[in-house]
Amino acid sequence: MDRPGAVAQLRAAVTRFVGDHDLRDDRWCVALSGGPDSLALAAVAATVLPTTALIVDHGLQPGSAAVAAAAREHALAVGCVAVQVIRVQVGAEGGPEAAARTARYRALEQARGGVPVLLAHTLDDQAETVLLGLGRGSGARSIAGMRPVDPPWYRPLLGVRRALTHAACGELGLTAWQDPHNTDPRYTRARLRTEVLPLLEDVLGGGVAEALARTATALREDTDTLDAMAEEFLAGAGAGLQPATLAPLPPALRRRVIRGWLLAGGATGLTDKQIRAVDALVIAWRGQGGVAVGSAHPGQRLFAGRRKGVLMLYREPV
Amino acid sequence: MDRPGAVAQLRAAVTRFVGDHDLRDDRWCVALSGGPDSLALAAVAATVLPTTALIVDHGLQPGSAAVAAAAREHALAVGCVAVQVIRVQVGAEGGPEAAARTARYRALEQARGGVPVLLAHTLDDQAETVLLGLGRGSGARSIAGMRPVDPPWYRPLLGVRRALTHAACGELGLTAWQDPHNTDPRYTRARLRTEVLPLLEDVLGGGVAEALARTATALREDTDTLDAMAEEFLAGAGAGLQPATLAPLPPALRRRVIRGWLLAGGATGLTDKQIRAVDALVIAWRGQGGVAVGSAHPGQRLFAGRRKGVLMLYREPV
Repeated sequence: MDRPGAVAQLRAAVTRFVGDHDLRDDRWCVALSGGPDSLALAAVAATVLPTTALIVDHGLQPGSAAVAAAAREHALAVGCVAVQVIRVQVGAEGGPEAAARTARYRALEQARGGVPVLLAHTLDDQAETVLLGLGRGSGARSIAGMRPVDPPWYRPLLGVRRALTHAACGELGLTAWQDPHNTDPRYTRARLRTEVLPLLEDVLGGGVAEALARTATALREDTDTLDAMAEEFLAGAGAGLQPATLAPLPPALRRRVIRGWLLAGGATGLTDKQIRAVDALVIAWRGQGGVAVGSAHPGQRLFAGRRKGVLMLYREPV
Repeated sequence: MDRPGAVAQLRAAVTRFVGDHDLRDDRWCVALSGGPDSLALAAVAATVLPTTALIVDHGLQPGSAAVAAAAREHALAVGCVAVQVIRVQVGAEGGPEAAARTARYRALEQARGGVPVLLAHTLDDQAETVLLGLGRGSGARSIAGMRPVDPPWYRPLLGVRRALTHAACGELGLTAWQDPHNTDPRYTRARLRTEVLPLLEDVLGGGVAEALARTATALREDTDTLDAMAEEFLAGAGAGLQPATLAPLPPALRRRVIRGWLLAGGATGLTDKQIRAVDALVIAWRGQGGVAVGSAHPGQRLFAGRRKGVLMLYREPV
């Protein structure tokens, strides 16, 4: 028997995903950039359920309107029942990539009409995300990668290699848009894709993208489990934390409780160093002063300190 | 005030480590390869406690006896109170690097005379270990890196950059041995050191080695916490596992329980895929057959299966 073609393999991945995650909607959207991953996903999704293609035009590259128009034609050609092109205004916060992502997800959220949105991230995207997270060094949270299911977002191709979506476009006779950012060495992700991953594959003897994706899954499960336990602990605590009840917790759990408590109190941009400094107020108490943490309120400074035997958050005007 | 020299910084790292980990022995050993990391550690350790240098001659490279003899001279010159050179026979199991490591740790264990052994692994070694583990893709366990404390092994330099040990050797006027393996592109670790890490530093904008080391620490804490919870659960279970009590556990914990149960039953070389297949007997039961796993006993095949509503291990002669 012949090996099934790329389109058939993608379709199998999507239908398996629908079964595994008990997706019971009677229609859905696909976020379509016009590139091969999302175009192949749209083509396959449209054979499973009535599919609306949502095309976000970020207006950042010359000719972006033409890319969006071509994507619209492709979407209709592969059987989408509806297409929406949404022009967004990209801000500047967090750098150009983060700002574009924020604008994109906001637009998709508004346009989706209450139904799930399929995103075409592949196993290769996941591997790149893990490597990006490694550079941050904030533990499992930063390398746990993207979630397959994070309603309303669904990623049915997270276990599929990018090569398969490209092959599927070939089978379907579709010439997808090639985003020049994907190979532009000014973008970190492009360099991870074109330089770092190929070198790692060579040095570690292959299978690296799959290994990174497996790692992401395992770490996400670990961190979800510990996060849930920390939340449960916090739900039973008041505004102040008692060092005596915190101290016996295992370190991984104790620091998550501290992190959750700080976030609930309005802290922002927390670093591992800050969390460990607050932890020291619990397990290495020698009368030290409060730990300054970033505040979500611009006019306010925030400190975590231990007074009268209790951990408390203190606010001061800037 | 001048910045303290490299030797003073290393000494501070070692004395802080002794305090943090409550090391109360009145003497210790240092595993000495003759390279800059272990030579600098021996020099600093000898100023803190009476130090025996343990030099393992693997007999793998031409001139290894001369390297060992030079290391012996260095050890005495930097103030070690005793030196032992141990010639070992390296086997073949698991490849040359793994076999040398097994022989080395066995020799150190026999020679240490009941006292702690300091190992000179640095933050850079830790970063390389994390990258090696990423290539395996078996989750937190494979990227949690080396433990600072794993009696009788102690790693006081795990937070220190390799450059500092090299600078310390310079300050002390010591010309350390340069292991040709460290730059030999036939060794994976050498390529991670000389090719992958510099590229990652460039692409991710610096701080990668530190980020990898922080990640290792965080993941080790996570996995230690979950492992302890799984052990506790297993301690209360019998030879067979009850799916009904396993199923409600969070996935990260459930799979650790399954892993521990399989290992306790004599399984070996477990893969993520096997563990997930056994997990499916619990959470996706549809009457499927047993899952074959590697057996620690050569004459035996081992299966995990669900019969009469209980998970059991079955042994069959090969």
